[in-house]
Amino acid sequence: MIRIGIFGYGNLGRGIEAAVHKNSDMTLAAVFTRREPSALKINTDGVPVVHVSEVEKWTDKIDVMVLCGGSATDLPEQTPALAKLFNLVDSFDTHAKIPEHFEKVDSAAKENGKTALISAGWDPGMFSLNRLYAACVLPDGKDYTFWGKGVSQGHSDAVRRIDGVVDARQYTIPKAEALEKVRNGENPDLSTRDKHLRECFVVAEEGADLKKIENEIKTMPNYFADYDTIVHFITMDELKREHSGIPHGGFVIRSGKTGFNNEHSHLIEYSLKLDSNPEFTASVIAAYARAVYKLYKEGAVGCKTVFDIAPAYLSGLSGEEIRKNLL
Amino acid sequence: MIRIGIFGYGNLGRGIEAAVHKNSDMTLAAVFTRREPSALKINTDGVPVVHVSEVEKWTDKIDVMVLCGGSATDLPEQTPALAKLFNLVDSFDTHAKIPEHFEKVDSAAKENGKTALISAGWDPGMFSLNRLYAACVLPDGKDYTFWGKGVSQGHSDAVRRIDGVVDARQYTIPKAEALEKVRNGENPDLSTRDKHLRECFVVAEEGADLKKIENEIKTMPNYFADYDTIVHFITMDELKREHSGIPHGGFVIRSGKTGFNNEHSHLIEYSLKLDSNPEFTASVIAAYARAVYKLYKEGAVGCKTVFDIAPAYLSGLSGEEIRKNLL
Repeated sequence: MIRIGIFGYGNLGRGIEAAVHKNSDMTLAAVFTRREPSALKINTDGVPVVHVSEVEKWTDKIDVMVLCGGSATDLPEQTPALAKLFNLVDSFDTHAKIPEHFEKVDSAAKENGKTALISAGWDPGMFSLNRLYAACVLPDGKDYTFWGKGVSQGHSDAVRRIDGVVDARQYTIPKAEALEKVRNGENPDLSTRDKHLRECFVVAEEGADLKKIENEIKTMPNYFADYDTIVHFITMDELKREHSGIPHGGFVIRSGKTGFNNEHSHLIEYSLKLDSNPEFTASVIAAYARAVYKLYKEGAVGCKTVFDIAPAYLSGLSGEEIRKNLL
Repeated sequence: MIRIGIFGYGNLGRGIEAAVHKNSDMTLAAVFTRREPSALKINTDGVPVVHVSEVEKWTDKIDVMVLCGGSATDLPEQTPALAKLFNLVDSFDTHAKIPEHFEKVDSAAKENGKTALISAGWDPGMFSLNRLYAACVLPDGKDYTFWGKGVSQGHSDAVRRIDGVVDARQYTIPKAEALEKVRNGENPDLSTRDKHLRECFVVAEEGADLKKIENEIKTMPNYFADYDTIVHFITMDELKREHSGIPHGGFVIRSGKTGFNNEHSHLIEYSLKLDSNPEFTASVIAAYARAVYKLYKEGAVGCKTVFDIAPAYLSGLSGEEIRKNLL
């Protein structure tokens, strides 16, 4: 059994806990929290909840630690620090800072003989894999990533910070016309506005200036100004009833040409439709935790990404079994 | 430059030749043929065409040999024999015989310090990868593979063997209702007939008994009897004009559940839409030829499949570059 530790018990941590139950070769060893452990109720009976300050005592009781903190401030500190003590997986998703994060984690893991994998999930993660595979298979081509329809936590938070807003949910929606052009192999040049639409469901304070809120959303730099944005004002009841889920998904599409005269076109499309973004992310991480465990046993220390992991390492089955049943 | 050899110059061999031109780190070293070499005109100037009986003289001039023969009789002999002399890739696609083929090639390659990769292409190949990734990420789920719309060479040949048939083309078509049920996450049990339709375009001899031909097609065991089959009789002109391409494609879809109470559903879909089946297969093989070359240089000898290859090996870019640009 692969003994999994969960470091941070938010949506992703709960998703990891559920994923461990779906993988018969894994067991949950402990959950680590910054909160007062006795105040935290988890879903699995008999599993210790431990304060993060005690984590060093667990080095011989955990095979792979899964870091469930955020990419903005938690993981840049936690992953390099914990890579000195544990094999681990994180879901670091600040694309621009991945090279720097990789170097720090790689040094820490190598110096201490540990195996780490960063940026697991679906983007970065499964989408990255599909971008790489498709680019290698169709070198003369162009790829497109679309996200949604799904809830963007960052954009929802940005709307919530506006004066007069009580709560909000933002959906990122790929534009059907853009998707169609890409699927037709037209290789269009698409602006930010061409690719995605943003739809906001906003609960405003009583008496708030709705026109002003709507304008503040639509003109917000980086988050909304470059997009077509639709704003709906709804009641808190409606928000809770209709918008409490965390669905997401998207598309990675590459179109490319083959032949001596580029006479043949091909389309590779990978898509995800997810009821729960954190639970699916957790499911990907669980599979990569298995890979990290196997690689560590083989002595492959240092920092890895999904690009460095042969697919067979994700599976609990033997090479013979997967060749027989899945090839 | 990776020096590629092509062993067998049919549709797939020509596809490899075109794919080498799309990959700037590859060069075509020679084409090997069972025909009289002087009678064979290839698309690349200045590349030797060599009789297969001379292949042993080329061991130090080729980095990776690509075997382009058929799975029925060519590859079971050729791949183990050539794995003693060359690093190689084949596209062996008789699913039931893959384990046996693997063992033979593995022994030959290991004994002679070579690296071989079998069953590259899109199914087996990219579809197999997607079945494996999806199964590992959603262990509580079910997957479906649909093929088409595309030309099945084997089924076209079967129709051509019927008395009174001059030429024929058979399309395998996934049934839209079945695809929809799978995409809805219904996890249906689908029979052979439920999943695919077969459509035949047949050129008959003048005066042939069309009713008899149609009946022979529709009742042919293994090939058509278990399917709904549509038969059209057309002229040779129409066949040449409308049905001369070799398009194909298909879908690998897995739906699965996550959550402590299976409360969330997810759908992973990978699809291909290919103008030219052999050229796309060749493009996949070219990427895996690069991987074989890199693995050989690292000393990883023996037989591999797509499951054993970390995605980064397919790319001509460095680890830093792919982490920066594709993760």
